[in-house]
Order: sequence, then C-alpha cells, then structure tokens
Amino acid sequence: MIYKHHVPSLDRLIHELKKWPGVGSRSANRLANWLLKMPQAEIQQLIQALKDIKTNIKKCPGCFTFTEEEELCRLCRSSHRKADLICVVEEPFDIARVEASGKFKGRYHVLHGTLSPLHNVKPEDLTIKPLLEKIKQGQIKEVILALDADMEGDITALYIGKLMKDHNIKVSRLAHGIPFGGDINYIDEQTLGRALENRVEVVI
Amino acid sequence: MIYKHHVPSLDRLIHELKKWPGVGSRSANRLANWLLKMPQAEIQQLIQALKDIKTNIKKCPGCFTFTEEEELCRLCRSSHRKADLICVVEEPFDIARVEASGKFKGRYHVLHGTLSPLHNVKPEDLTIKPLLEKIKQGQIKEVILALDADMEGDITALYIGKLMKDHNIKVSRLAHGIPFGGDINYIDEQTLGRALENRVEVVI
Repeated sequence: MIYKHHVPSLDRLIHELKKWPGVGSRSANRLANWLLKMPQAEIQQLIQALKDIKTNIKKCPGCFTFTEEEELCRLCRSSHRKADLICVVEEPFDIARVEASGKFKGRYHVLHGTLSPLHNVKPEDLTIKPLLEKIKQGQIKEVILALDADMEGDITALYIGKLMKDHNIKVSRLAHGIPFGGDINYIDEQTLGRALENRVEVVI
Repeated sequence: MIYKHHVPSLDRLIHELKKWPGVGSRSANRLANWLLKMPQAEIQQLIQALKDIKTNIKKCPGCFTFTEEEELCRLCRSSHRKADLICVVEEPFDIARVEASGKFKGRYHVLHGTLSPLHNVKPEDLTIKPLLEKIKQGQIKEVILALDADMEGDITALYIGKLMKDHNIKVSRLAHGIPFGGDINYIDEQTLGRALENRVEVVI
C-alpha cells in the first residue's frame, strides 16, 4: 500500500529511502517521519557523514578494503601480521568479522563480490588479477577463502582454488558445519550433510 | 557486537544510522556498506532530499499537518470537505491512512503527539489550544478522535473529550474491535473485551 502525502519533498525522501535494502513502503514512511522531526543539526551531521564517505574513503592498493589512509591500510602496513598468509573475503566489512574471531593474523584480500553467472559477474569484475599478481611475487604460502557458504561462494572458491593450485599454493576454505551452540534438530540437511562430510576425528 | 572498521568516515556514518528507529548495529553496517557502493549521483539525490525536507516543509496553519503550500494545505483549502467535522490525529502521516479508508470527508487536526505522563508530554506541548480556538468559532459540530488504541491514546481522548463536552460538541472515537479478517482465536483479550463491549446489533 503506497500512501501519498501530497508533500513533494516528503514523497521524494520516501522514494529515496525505499531504494535502501530491507526498507519497504511502511519503514520508509516511518523513517521519513522520524527524520522530519529530527533537529536541523542532526540532519546536518547525517548529510556530512554521507558526503564524507564519498570524498574520504578509497580502496587500499594492497588488499582493496575501504580505507582513509594515504597509502596502504592499517592491516597491510602492520609488521605484526604474517605476510605469507592471505585471507580472501568478499566484502571489506567481512574483515572486521574475521578480526573479531581473533583466529587470523595474516593479511587480507577483498574480492568486492563473488563470481555469479546469474548476475553476470565475471573474474575481471573482481580483484582476482591483483590477487594473482601477489601470488606471482612468490611470498605467499597459503590462501584461506573466507567466502559465504552459498552457490556464488562455491563457484568463486573453485575458480580461485584452481588458479592457486597452478601456482602450488595451499588453498583452504572455512569449514562448513553446525554453528557453535547449534541444535541438530534445527539444522538444514545441506549443513548437516557438509558437517558429516567434513567430520573431525575426536582425539583423546 | 560492535565491529570497528578503523575507517573514521565509515564509523561516523554507522554511528548516525544507528540512531534511526529500528536500525541496530548489524543493519547500520549493512546500510553503510550499501551506501558506500552507491553511485555519487544517487547519494547526492539522497542528500538533496534530506536538505529539502528541512527547508521546504512547514506546518499548515489550519490543521498543523506537514505541507509545502504557501498558506493552508490542500485538505484545508478544499471546498469539497465538510467544515463542521474534524478528525483529530496524532501525526501528519496518519492523515494519509484515514484518507486511504475513503470514509472521511471532513477536515483534520494534527496533535503532533499524545499526552503522556510517562514521557512528560503536557497539553501545551500538543496543538490542543488551536483546536479549542477552532471549536470556539462555533462552526464545528463533531470531533472524531482517530488516536492509537494505547494508554496515551486513551488519556488524550479523555482529556480532549472533556474539553469538547464543555463546548457541547459531539465527540467520538474510532471503534475498537476485531480487525477485518481477524480470527477470534488469535485476538488478545483486551481487543476481544472491547469488541464485546462495543458490540453492534445485527440488522436484518
């Protein structure tokens, strides 16, 4: 149901908000109403933040994550991280998730997407070529593919896995299985199937 | 869980987005990522829309809804609407909802809130005084209170109802009851109780 407010500025804002992911007609109306009641100063802060992301943020020439640094990003510059281990992620935001696990101390490489025949995303649309350049320099020993557990993730993993094998690089993927605290009765069969295939021996 | 991206502009935008109603840490991250990938022109449209609502929109001096008109809003100006019947709503956005029902052809009056002892909202914080001014002019015959069916709505309805009674104005409230298509088994007891109290005789 679309409600017309007959207030052009308001209808334009609602139109813009409805483009956002997960924002439908009702949410857009609610957000617009809320923004209308916001003090001028707060709206100005929001506008400034929107301007800043476009002017200040660029891609790190090392790992292609978003950064505001002049040259390499914080993680690429760090001398405390292993230079021979690369974790390949789909999006810059995935880095913060992997970092939060505290289990990875190497470098990152952001693909900015996954291969998708359905959405016509080809290898040249991603940062696969620069990844290959890094490999050719001969310092990298292992590549961990931290990709989503969906069809696009699988296709991308296979594609990169094959490229890496040609260069004798060890390639691994995140383990699929039952999530921590997961109840077997509530887990879908695909996940359970992968968890069975990738079963780990109990060492006593 | 709060993920730090170590990109100040990005963290600032996420901070702004998290102030929005219904937007948590995870949604703010997802929206920020999506906004980062938006083309410059689209961001500019959004910024313009945000600026416009603050500069173009004001309150109608007649009914206090949001409008961009120089003087009275479209509904206050219309000669096709009954001038002796007023529908009192909480928010400007409620007008579009009542209009969509197609059952009301009078004028509106927007309170911009409801009385709330809990949130310290007093009669002078709402547009109750201008409503009383309208009543005193002697043209109004009936006031319909289209307020939410919650405690604040009840308090406000009682307060305005008493004021109107002092001026011999007929006051009504929206009927509470089972929603259209509602299943009695899934309706809470308060609603069912009100539906019983307000039962309507079946006329054959």
